[in-house]
Amino acid sequence: MTLTVYLSGEIHTDWREQIVAGAEGLDVAFSGPVTDHAASDDCGVAILGEEPDKFWHDHKGAMVNAIRTRKGIADADVVVVRFGDQYKQWNAAFDAGYASALGKSLIILHGPAHAHALKEVDAAALAVAQEPAQVVDILRYVLTGTLPG
Amino acid sequence: MTLTVYLSGEIHTDWREQIVAGAEGLDVAFSGPVTDHAASDDCGVAILGEEPDKFWHDHKGAMVNAIRTRKGIADADVVVVRFGDQYKQWNAAFDAGYASALGKSLIILHGPAHAHALKEVDAAALAVAQEPAQVVDILRYVLTGTLPG
Amino acid sequence: MTLTVYLSGEIHTDWREQIVAGAEGLDVAFSGPVTDHAASDDCGVAILGEEPDKFWHDHKGAMVNAIRTRKGIADADVVVVRFGDQYKQWNAAFDAGYASALGKSLIILHGPAHAHALKEVDAAALAVAQEPAQVVDILRYVLTGTLPG
Amino acid sequence: MTLTVYLSGEIHTDWREQIVAGAEGLDVAFSGPVTDHAASDDCGVAILGEEPDKFWHDHKGAMVNAIRTRKGIADADVVVVRFGDQYKQWNAAFDAGYASALGKSLIILHGPAHAHALKEVDAAALAVAQEPAQVVDILRYVLTGTLPG
Amino acid sequence: MTLTVYLSGEIHTDWREQIVAGAEGLDVAFSGPVTDHAASDDCGVAILGEEPDKFWHDHKGAMVNAIRTRKGIADADVVVVRFGDQYKQWNAAFDAGYASALGKSLIILHGPAHAHALKEVDAAALAVAQEPAQVVDILRYVLTGTLPG
Amino acid sequence: MTLTVYLSGEIHTDWREQIVAGAEGLDVAFSGPVTDHAASDDCGVAILGEEPDKFWHDHKGAMVNAIRTRKGIADADVVVVRFGDQYKQWNAAFDAGYASALGKSLIILHGPAHAHALKEVDAAALAVAQEPAQVVDILRYVLTGTLPG
Amino acid sequence: MTLTVYLSGEIHTDWREQIVAGAEGLDVAFSGPVTDHAASDDCGVAILGEEPDKFWHDHKGAMVNAIRTRKGIADADVVVVRFGDQYKQWNAAFDAGYASALGKSLIILHGPAHAHALKEVDAAALAVAQEPAQVVDILRYVLTGTLPG
Amino acid sequence: MTLTVYLSGEIHTDWREQIVAGAEGLDVAFSGPVTDHAASDDCGVAILGEEPDKFWHDHKGAMVNAIRTRKGIADADVVVVRFGDQYKQWNAAFDAGYASALGKSLIILHGPAHAHALKEVDAAALAVAQEPAQVVDILRYVLTGTLPG
Repeated sequence: MTLTVYLSGEIHTDWREQIVAGAEGLDVAFSGPVTDHAASDDCGVAILGEEPDKFWHDHKGAMVNAIRTRKGIADADVVVVRFGDQYKQWNAAFDAGYASALGKSLIILHGPAHAHALKEVDAAALAVAQEPAQVVDILRYVLTGTLPG
Repeated sequence: MTLTVYLSGEIHTDWREQIVAGAEGLDVAFSGPVTDHAASDDCGVAILGEEPDKFWHDHKGAMVNAIRTRKGIADADVVVVRFGDQYKQWNAAFDAGYASALGKSLIILHGPAHAHALKEVDAAALAVAQEPAQVVDILRYVLTGTLPG
Repeated sequence: MTLTVYLSGEIHTDWREQIVAGAEGLDVAFSGPVTDHAASDDCGVAILGEEPDKFWHDHKGAMVNAIRTRKGIADADVVVVRFGDQYKQWNAAFDAGYASALGKSLIILHGPAHAHALKEVDAAALAVAQEPAQVVDILRYVLTGTLPG
Repeated sequence: MTLTVYLSGEIHTDWREQIVAGAEGLDVAFSGPVTDHAASDDCGVAILGEEPDKFWHDHKGAMVNAIRTRKGIADADVVVVRFGDQYKQWNAAFDAGYASALGKSLIILHGPAHAHALKEVDAAALAVAQEPAQVVDILRYVLTGTLPG
Repeated sequence: MTLTVYLSGEIHTDWREQIVAGAEGLDVAFSGPVTDHAASDDCGVAILGEEPDKFWHDHKGAMVNAIRTRKGIADADVVVVRFGDQYKQWNAAFDAGYASALGKSLIILHGPAHAHALKEVDAAALAVAQEPAQVVDILRYVLTGTLPG
Repeated sequence: MTLTVYLSGEIHTDWREQIVAGAEGLDVAFSGPVTDHAASDDCGVAILGEEPDKFWHDHKGAMVNAIRTRKGIADADVVVVRFGDQYKQWNAAFDAGYASALGKSLIILHGPAHAHALKEVDAAALAVAQEPAQVVDILRYVLTGTLPG
Repeated sequence: MTLTVYLSGEIHTDWREQIVAGAEGLDVAFSGPVTDHAASDDCGVAILGEEPDKFWHDHKGAMVNAIRTRKGIADADVVVVRFGDQYKQWNAAFDAGYASALGKSLIILHGPAHAHALKEVDAAALAVAQEPAQVVDILRYVLTGTLPG
Repeated sequence: MTLTVYLSGEIHTDWREQIVAGAEGLDVAFSGPVTDHAASDDCGVAILGEEPDKFWHDHKGAMVNAIRTRKGIADADVVVVRFGDQYKQWNAAFDAGYASALGKSLIILHGPAHAHALKEVDAAALAVAQEPAQVVDILRYVLTGTLPG
C-alpha cells in the first residue's frame, strides 16, 4: 500500500522537509504546492503576460497554481494542512474544505493558539496534530501499525 | 427557476440582511449558518453535555453546526462567502473550498484590502464583489436578465 | 429549509415516537424502517413465496426491506442510528456505514455502556447523543438556531 | 487482472492468515486494518496526546484508524467482512455498510449461528461464506475460472 | 414518502395496468416507456425524417425513446422490469442493467420458465416476482409496512 | 412527469419562442441563457466594475452568465442546442459538451449546411433536428407518446 | 495509452480468441467473464454449498460471477458485447445497460438478423459491428490511427 | 508526479509537436485525437461499412473517434484546447465543455482575434495562452516550480 499525501498550507517554515525526512523508508508519495513564494505569486504574468491591474496579476497566478493544487489534492489519500503563526492563510483553509468535500482524509497541523479559530476545520479532520513529527507518526502507524516509542 | 443561495462567512455585520432585503421579489431561497455567535460556540455542550477541555467543547459545537452547514451548501445553487475585516475567518475559506469542490457557483464578497490574501479563493469564484448590493444585482441579473441602473 | 431525517436502528423501545413528538412544529420529515418485527422478518416469504430454508427466508425479507431502507437513507439529510441494550443490531451499524459513505450527517444515539464498542461508528458521526431528547434539541438548533433551556 | 481485497472485521483468530496463505500464487493484493488490538485502541493518544476522558481517548484512536480503513476500502475491488463469535463487532458491520454504499463486491464470512442477525448484511453481499477456505476458492475462481476439487 | 416507480419491459399484456390499479391509494408515482408499439418503432422517422435504411430508421426511433427511458429510470426509486413469454426483450434486460448500475432498487417480474436465463438479472434485484399482484404487495409493504392477507 | 428543458445557443432568431409556444399545454419547464445580447456582454462590468482591458471585460461577464448557464443545464433533463448560420457559436458547442458529460439528453438543432462541421456534436445527441417544430414534436412524443399528423 | 477492453456476451463461439489474436501487438488489456459454461453455472454451489432449489443454485452462482463481471466492466475503457444466434442472452444485454450507465464506450457485435431486436442496445453504442475483425480494426484505429487495408 | 495532458482541437498546424518537443524531459504523458484528417473522417465507414447518406457516414466516424476522445479526456489531468484561424472547430469547443464538466484543468490556446468569441470557453479555463510555448511553460512550472527566463 502506497499512501499519497498532499502537504498544503504554510510555506515559511521547513515543516514539509521535516515530514518528508521523518517518513523516509515509508511507502509514501508526497506532493504539495510550489513553495517558492515569488514564483507562486508571479507565475501567471511571467508565463501568460503582464497585467497592469494587481487583481488580475494575482488572478492569473492563482489559476495557474490551481492546476497543480487540484491535481495534488485529487490524487491524494491524505491531505495535511498546516496553519502557521502568520498571515491569513485562507488558501490553506480553502484547500482543507476542498479536500473534505472530496472525502480525503484530513490531518490539520497547528499550534494550540489557533484551536478556537480552526474549530470548523479541525472538525472535518481525522487528526489534529501540533508537530510535524506527529504527522510522521500517523503515517508510520497507518502504513505499518507501529506506534512511536 | 428558484435560485437557492447559501450565505456563508462573516457574522458581525448586517450583510445578510442587506442581501435578503435587496432580493425581495426575486425567486431566491436563502439559507446560512446560525449567526448567533454564543449559541454557535456553545451548541455542542449545551445539548450533548459539558466538556472540561476547551478543544472538545469547540469540537462538539463545530460538529453540530456542520449538520446545518453541509445541508445548506449541498442544497445551494450559489454560495456567497463574505470575508470581513476581523478575525481569521478560516471557516469561511473552508466553506468556499468545500462548495468549490462540489461544483457550486461561488460569489466571494470582500473589501479590496483582502484581495491578495484571497487570490486563491477568488480564483475559484464566478464573481468577486465588494458590496452586498452587487450580490443582489448578480442574483437579479441571473434570474431576470435585468442589469442595474 | 426542510430537514429529512431517517431514524435507523433499535425497534423495541419508543425512541422514534419520542423524537417525532418532540420535533412537533419543526420542519422535519421523518422516515424509518418498518418497525413491526414480525412483518419485517416475514415480508419476503409472505409476498414472494415460502422458503423451506431459513437462510433464504431471511434473505428474501432483508432484500424487500432494503427497498425501503435504501430509499429512506438516500433521501435523508440526517441519519440517526439508535443502538439499544439488546441484540447484535448489526443492521444498525450497517446503516451507519452505508449512510456515512453517502456523506449523510450521522447522529448516533446510545447509552454510555456501548461507547467503546461503538467508537468507530461514533467517529463517523457529527453528534453522539444518549437520549432522544438530545436529538430533538439538535434538530431544533439546526433548523432554528435555538438552544434548549 | 489484479484483485484488490480488503479483509475487515474480527481480529482474534488467524482467518486473514489462512486466506492470504491459501491465495498464494493468485494475483491478489490484500489489505486490512491494524490487527494489533492494543495499538489500535491507543494509537490516537499515543501519537496525538493523552485524553483523561475515555470517550475522547477512543475517539482519537478511531479517527486515526479511519485513515487506514477508508483507504483500504476505497482501493478495494472486494471487501471481505468476518464476524466472529465474540464482541459486538459493530465496526465490522459499519465497514460492510460503508463498502456496500461504495459499490464494492462484498463477501461476508460467519458461522451459521449468526445468520439471522446478519441477514441485512448478508443481503448486501455477493457471497456468504462460512470458512476462510471458501473465500480463497472464490478468489481463485474469480481470477482463474477454476473450481475447487 | 412518495415512491417513484418505473415500469420497464414487456408491452403486450396489461401488467402495467394491473400494478397501477392495484396500487391505487398508495403514494406511488408511476412512469414507463411509450407502450404504443407502432409509435415507439416509428417515432424517429415520423418526427425527424424518413430513412431508407431500416437500421437508421430503428436507430432514430431508439434514440428518441431513450430521452423518455433515461428520464424515467433516473428519476425512479424502484425499477420494475417485466419479461414476457415472447421476443428477445433485450431492451428490458438493458434497462435492468442500466438501472442496476445507477443503484436503483430492482424488482424483476417473470414466470418460472425464464428463471435460469434470467439468473444474472435476478441476481441484481431486490425482489423476483412472478405476478403483478406481488409487485403491488411489495409497494404496499414498502410504503405502509402492511403485509397481504 | 415534468420535463425540464434548457434551450442553449443561437440568440438572434425566435426559435426559443417557437418551441415554447408549440409546447403550450405540455408539462415542460423551459430555461435558457439571458438572450439580451448587450446585457449578456456587459453584465460583468455593469455590476462588478469597469475593466479597461476588453479581455477582462468579457471574462467578468462570461463568469456571471455562467451562474445561470450552469444552473440551467444542471437542472435540465433535456438540453436543446441550436446552431444558427452566423458567428462562431463556440459557447453553444461548449454547452453541448458540458451537458453531454453530465449525461443530459441532447437535442441538436441546425440546418443541413452545418452537418459535417457538427458531426462530433451530433454524435453525442439523442436527436438531430432541423426545425424548432421537430423539437416540439419530440417533447410531445416523450411526454405523451403522441406522434405528429 | 493502454486500452482496457471487456469482452461480454456469447460464450459458444471463438469470437474472443479472434479478437485477442487480431489485436496482438496492440496495447490492449482484455478481460471477460468465465467462459467455461459448466463452471459458471455451478460456481456458487461448488464453493458455498449445495442448494436443493434450482433458483438458489443459480442465484449463488450468478452472484459469485458478478464479482468478476463488475470488476471487469468497472475497469474497462471499452466494453464489447457479442450477441450470438442462440439463447436469450439477457446477461449480455444487462451488461450492456450496466456499462452504458457507467459511461463506458460500448461496441455491440451481432449479425444483421438481430438488428431490430437490439435497436435500443445498439443506440447506446459507439459502434455496431458484425464481425470480430471489425472490433480489431476499431481497437487498432483508436490506438494507432491506422485504418484497415 | 506524472501529468497526463490531452491535446484537443485544431489539427492543421504543428502546435502539438511544438508542445511535445518543448516538454521533453518533463514527466508528462500526452494524448490526443487522431490527427490524420482523412482517416478521422472516414474511419466509421472504412471499418463498419459504407453509408450512402453523408450524415450517417459522418456519424459512424464521429462515434468511432469518440472512443478515443472520451478515453483521452477521462484519463487527463489537463486538457489543452487549441482554436486555430479556420473552420468552425465546434468539436474543440465541445471537448472543452465536456472536459470542464468533468472538472479537468483546462488550458485554452488561441490568438487574440478569437478572444471575444471564446469568452465563455476561456471563462472555464485555468489559463488562456496564445502560443504553444506558453503551454510548455505552464507544464514545466506546474511540475517543477520553475519559471521561464
